[in-house]
Amino acid sequence: MNDPIDLIRRQVSDLHQELVRYQLVVWTAGNVSARVPGEDLMVIKPSGVSYDELTPEAMIVCDLDGKVVEGAHSPSSDTAAHAYVYRHLPEVGGVVHTHSTYACAWAARGEAVPCVLTAMADEFGAEIPVGPFALIGDDSIGRGIVDTLRDHRSPAVLMKSHGVFTVGKDAKAAVKAAVMCEDVARTVHISRQLGEPLPIAQAHIDALNHRYQHVYGQQSAAR
Amino acid sequence: MNDPIDLIRRQVSDLHQELVRYQLVVWTAGNVSARVPGEDLMVIKPSGVSYDELTPEAMIVCDLDGKVVEGAHSPSSDTAAHAYVYRHLPEVGGVVHTHSTYACAWAARGEAVPCVLTAMADEFGAEIPVGPFALIGDDSIGRGIVDTLRDHRSPAVLMKSHGVFTVGKDAKAAVKAAVMCEDVARTVHISRQLGEPLPIAQAHIDALNHRYQHVYGQQSAAR
Amino acid sequence: MNDPIDLIRRQVSDLHQELVRYQLVVWTAGNVSARVPGEDLMVIKPSGVSYDELTPEAMIVCDLDGKVVEGAHSPSSDTAAHAYVYRHLPEVGGVVHTHSTYACAWAARGEAVPCVLTAMADEFGAEIPVGPFALIGDDSIGRGIVDTLRDHRSPAVLMKSHGVFTVGKDAKAAVKAAVMCEDVARTVHISRQLGEPLPIAQAHIDALNHRYQHVYGQQSAAR
Amino acid sequence: MNDPIDLIRRQVSDLHQELVRYQLVVWTAGNVSARVPGEDLMVIKPSGVSYDELTPEAMIVCDLDGKVVEGAHSPSSDTAAHAYVYRHLPEVGGVVHTHSTYACAWAARGEAVPCVLTAMADEFGAEIPVGPFALIGDDSIGRGIVDTLRDHRSPAVLMKSHGVFTVGKDAKAAVKAAVMCEDVARTVHISRQLGEPLPIAQAHIDALNHRYQHVYGQQSAAR
Repeated sequence: MNDPIDLIRRQVSDLHQELVRYQLVVWTAGNVSARVPGEDLMVIKPSGVSYDELTPEAMIVCDLDGKVVEGAHSPSSDTAAHAYVYRHLPEVGGVVHTHSTYACAWAARGEAVPCVLTAMADEFGAEIPVGPFALIGDDSIGRGIVDTLRDHRSPAVLMKSHGVFTVGKDAKAAVKAAVMCEDVARTVHISRQLGEPLPIAQAHIDALNHRYQHVYGQQSAAR
Repeated sequence: MNDPIDLIRRQVSDLHQELVRYQLVVWTAGNVSARVPGEDLMVIKPSGVSYDELTPEAMIVCDLDGKVVEGAHSPSSDTAAHAYVYRHLPEVGGVVHTHSTYACAWAARGEAVPCVLTAMADEFGAEIPVGPFALIGDDSIGRGIVDTLRDHRSPAVLMKSHGVFTVGKDAKAAVKAAVMCEDVARTVHISRQLGEPLPIAQAHIDALNHRYQHVYGQQSAAR
Repeated sequence: MNDPIDLIRRQVSDLHQELVRYQLVVWTAGNVSARVPGEDLMVIKPSGVSYDELTPEAMIVCDLDGKVVEGAHSPSSDTAAHAYVYRHLPEVGGVVHTHSTYACAWAARGEAVPCVLTAMADEFGAEIPVGPFALIGDDSIGRGIVDTLRDHRSPAVLMKSHGVFTVGKDAKAAVKAAVMCEDVARTVHISRQLGEPLPIAQAHIDALNHRYQHVYGQQSAAR
Repeated sequence: MNDPIDLIRRQVSDLHQELVRYQLVVWTAGNVSARVPGEDLMVIKPSGVSYDELTPEAMIVCDLDGKVVEGAHSPSSDTAAHAYVYRHLPEVGGVVHTHSTYACAWAARGEAVPCVLTAMADEFGAEIPVGPFALIGDDSIGRGIVDTLRDHRSPAVLMKSHGVFTVGKDAKAAVKAAVMCEDVARTVHISRQLGEPLPIAQAHIDALNHRYQHVYGQQSAAR
């Protein structure tokens, strides 16, 4: 085994625990992947394995067509979607998929989450958009993700009747987007239960997003 | 003690902790049972015992009429219902009962959870149906479960004004169905608070369910 | 120190952790007390002390007028209400007070929780009733609790605009009632968000309650 | 390093764990600061650092213009707002900022939380007010907080479309206010989902608030 992949195996394995910690997943649903920098490879969760049993060694290495290169188990059944994203969005280094509750509630209605919180402007810079209904089994899901996110500020897409996919410069950034997506989907949902949230002016959204993506956090970018 | 029953005692005891972990139960409510393969026996939780005090040794072995064969405590007050299911559905190897919040909220209105999420199509293949109102004390509950689930894809039934019963090929599969049932009951409830979830075409439900039940997970079936 | 009181100090201290576990309390709100059998004494939580710092030794022993008999701290500011209950309801051995979320939501509207779940019929045998608005500082709260619960099956009362008080044969039973009260208040609330829960016939409520109070659990009564 | 600042570094670091425990924050959002008594200094969280990695040593010491005096990282991006509060409200010894869900849901509608619970009268003595929409980057947020809270009993303000700021005589009191703010924002929200909470007479609010601020808890004030 070469070292960079071992490091990524560990990162991907560990990041799955963040999905558990923030209650974005139940049972074996949800998955995180990371691109292996400089190679046409990705590391992804095995299919149907419990979060308690995930270890760096259990992670699967696939090529960017989703074919297993290294690993004793089958890869996540969402591998084709992850692979499609890596093939078509070269700046993406990590992909996350969850069925987190509030995000799915918006996705089930096919409704975007409007950008009505400053924290949403920071992280998403816009509404969280809806992607098409797509069946598993071919490129439909991956294409839906890429078509929706390619020219969008948001690193998250609500796939209709299905769940959330998020992207980031690395797997940690994609996990952060998944955590924030559920957080704002929940807050905006609850706010709307008793009335209409106030809009935020587009110029303010732009200013907040620009500052957050360029100034927030320590030296290295937060996203 | 013979070994296969000891193994099942441990499995049933451990699986109760999953009900706690996923917050499907409070105090002593809820119970898991497993059929002892090849014998007319089942292993079930003792009645009114706290989840902290459950051990493999505390589990009760009953025959399929619900009569205690081995165990120092009284069995769960839902034993008759579990036993009825094992007598009438020979393919069932595990049964779970909970009063999980969102599933009970649908059950209290006597309303089925519509199949509007791909994860629901995967696991349930249909709406989660409602069973009759039935009092404890005779075969009514067991009969209500069996009559509702016998020709239904769903491994979960919402017993009117009461709670959820799920079945599976083994106890773990029944626990998974209980976890997924609460998860989708919650998501669909929340989605409906702000509008109507989009329907999923029956052909798509069929395709998703077929793939999930036959392809998902590692070699052995996920359900 | 005499032994029976030490045992009760430990029980009362430990039972406060159940309030934390079931998320019925935040910060220092909420309290549990127990009558010392055969003596005109009760053991109660100190005022304004964090749940992490509660120990058996920190518990306060008061007489049934709420005067401190033993203890370095001030007793809970709800001591007068607990004491009033012990003076007027001799069968009560434990009292619990919380501001648990869903129960308080009903209390803030001054609305009883209707008995529409079999688990509610089991534990409460009726709706969970509303007591009067009462200010802290004299016997008003205690009197409101006693007047509401004296001829009621329910071991829980929703004090208007305030919170929940529960009683039991001992402190554990009162804690159980507090846990179940929040659980059913939550489930019925959620059910009503999307329609009206089905009523349960009075004869069925009576039958369920009778069985549960006399048959459920192991030898000793569950409540 | 001088000792009093080391103590405050530890307090501020530890209090961030209360934000996590009460689920007021996700990822790196939210921050706690404390004034250094007798000096024109404050201690605050570093920007964009995970709650798992916070240590007393990682905390940043700033002057009351928000300039870093000691610390290897950048301070919280909300430092200017905290500093403004310390400069203009000399009785304030601690400030907390969160995006807690229910409080933000009210803030997103620009709606104050009405004082309809006795626990709210205790801690807040009034509605929880709304402050203006303000962009990060200058004194707008700090000024909005101070203008809203200066003559208000409430230690919490809902900044429009943004989140909560709370103040206290020390950092622990400000954290308590943040915890209670989310708790009552949640309970009142849920209550209003099914009708209108009953009002509490102003004289009762006054009496409750006076008693709680002067009598509750042990010798030292609870707030």
